[in-house]
Amino acid sequence: MKNLAALQSLFQKEIDTLNLGEAPAKLYDPMHYIMQLGGKRLRPILSLMGAQIYGDPAKAMPQAMAIELFHNFSLIHDDIMDAAPLRRGKTTVHIKWDENVGILSGDGMLVKAYQYIAQCDPTILPEVLGTFSQTALEVCEGQQMDMDFETMDEVEADTYIKMIQFKTSVLLGCAMKVGALVGGGSKEDADALYQFALLLGTSFQIKDDYLDVYGDPEKFGKQVGGDILSNKKTLLWIEAQRRAALQGIDFSSYSSMEPNEDKVHSFQELYKILAVDTYAKEQIDHYYTLSLEALDKVSVDAERLAPLREFAAWLYARES
Amino acid sequence: MKNLAALQSLFQKEIDTLNLGEAPAKLYDPMHYIMQLGGKRLRPILSLMGAQIYGDPAKAMPQAMAIELFHNFSLIHDDIMDAAPLRRGKTTVHIKWDENVGILSGDGMLVKAYQYIAQCDPTILPEVLGTFSQTALEVCEGQQMDMDFETMDEVEADTYIKMIQFKTSVLLGCAMKVGALVGGGSKEDADALYQFALLLGTSFQIKDDYLDVYGDPEKFGKQVGGDILSNKKTLLWIEAQRRAALQGIDFSSYSSMEPNEDKVHSFQELYKILAVDTYAKEQIDHYYTLSLEALDKVSVDAERLAPLREFAAWLYARES
Repeated sequence: MKNLAALQSLFQKEIDTLNLGEAPAKLYDPMHYIMQLGGKRLRPILSLMGAQIYGDPAKAMPQAMAIELFHNFSLIHDDIMDAAPLRRGKTTVHIKWDENVGILSGDGMLVKAYQYIAQCDPTILPEVLGTFSQTALEVCEGQQMDMDFETMDEVEADTYIKMIQFKTSVLLGCAMKVGALVGGGSKEDADALYQFALLLGTSFQIKDDYLDVYGDPEKFGKQVGGDILSNKKTLLWIEAQRRAALQGIDFSSYSSMEPNEDKVHSFQELYKILAVDTYAKEQIDHYYTLSLEALDKVSVDAERLAPLREFAAWLYARES
Repeated sequence: MKNLAALQSLFQKEIDTLNLGEAPAKLYDPMHYIMQLGGKRLRPILSLMGAQIYGDPAKAMPQAMAIELFHNFSLIHDDIMDAAPLRRGKTTVHIKWDENVGILSGDGMLVKAYQYIAQCDPTILPEVLGTFSQTALEVCEGQQMDMDFETMDEVEADTYIKMIQFKTSVLLGCAMKVGALVGGGSKEDADALYQFALLLGTSFQIKDDYLDVYGDPEKFGKQVGGDILSNKKTLLWIEAQRRAALQGIDFSSYSSMEPNEDKVHSFQELYKILAVDTYAKEQIDHYYTLSLEALDKVSVDAERLAPLREFAAWLYARES
């Protein structure tokens, strides 16, 4: 069975020869531009891994590409909504071209994603398509929830978890499930694998929140404390706000601080006082454990799942 | 068999009870808002008519809704791109809410359209889905071509026809074909019906260009001469520019005029001198005739096609 690196290389070959269309150039050039910006390609790899459990990983190549196309469509539109100038260190599509090009080429990519996802045996097409559409809609809901949170005073931890699952983790689940279905797995297996990737993704996203506060600046790719400086409602922030209220600590005296180094240090301290760092680590472990338990429900020999367990352990241990 | 008005009323009932989702409100409210702005609902009616050829028009209700959802998704995004404040006399989504809401709820509507289009017998799903995706991509291409034309000095008539077909007519073709397939028509019938609607739509769009210049202000819904005032490259404009060059007439002395009543009159005169009004009428008739010829290839009793011929004649005769 192929490991992560081998599958990444397999997928990269497809990206290198990808031709989505040529004219009009302003519709198709941005698609190729963002697809070639790189990234870890975790989502399409999950599709290939899903198929590999049952045989040839390449059977799910069209679906892997569909998932990556969908992910990149959402990046183009999200970058417009967030007015982000950079993506993976390069100019975002709406800056390199303009907003109209970003909107329209994003739309076209979503359609392209549907063209790729549909390249499977007609007998499983309804299930594959239904899963993909449901996921796509949840991703839209997650993005809207995220934007709604910005102007809300308080957010419940459960609601926050739902948001990160919708915005990010469901696509991992979908990638995995669709790969398994196309590879020949049963509906029951595919559903268990969906849960595995969904829960692993949830753990991953909470780890992201944690690393933003306590990550090693040498290893963490982004600025440590970035979420604190922008008053972003992460899981640590939300739980700290709740615990501070219970303990009579004035949270707003922290959140209203000027966005500088001092603020980051104050929050790191506050989070420790309120044991929110421990809470976050427990949540990371909780979802990680649940994800591995989901794998136990997949009806194949344990060795077929070894690459998935390896992948999960690698993601769990990440520091960037 | 149900006539246009009966089918419109059937479809309106579906719109009245349409529930696409509730939360987050900023994602779903704009979808319901634009779906309830009204309009002639020509596209979904074509789907119902397609199914009615073979039996119950309501069989294609999900597909009719998919087509209308897709159309309205494209309206939301186009209105952002065109910075349009009004749609059917009401505030556009990106003005009533904001651009981010317009982008995201549009994306969600496109996904919803896919959910509806897929509600058909699995045996025809690949064909239905393939047609829909191909059409959706062509609509994106048509919109980009249209935007590209704005900054081009000259456009060929053939390229212009391709643009209006992609931007508008292919969706009519798709609506018709998908309705026929879902209703039980053969692939051959459905393809002929696609051609009928595509060509009828082409005639309709050229008529739109014609009415903008020579329409009766009392009957025409929009401002007569609007295209002339904004130097829009319509078929009449494109052909006039070409013929003027051949006859040594300085077209730019017309196009550079101040945008007022005088300019409209001057163009109306110029078009007559260059016989571009006759040319446009010939083109309207040409595509109308071709569309009716396409109907001859549909293998059903002539009476089953009577509502389509009636519909075509009604659209051909329109003055608004």
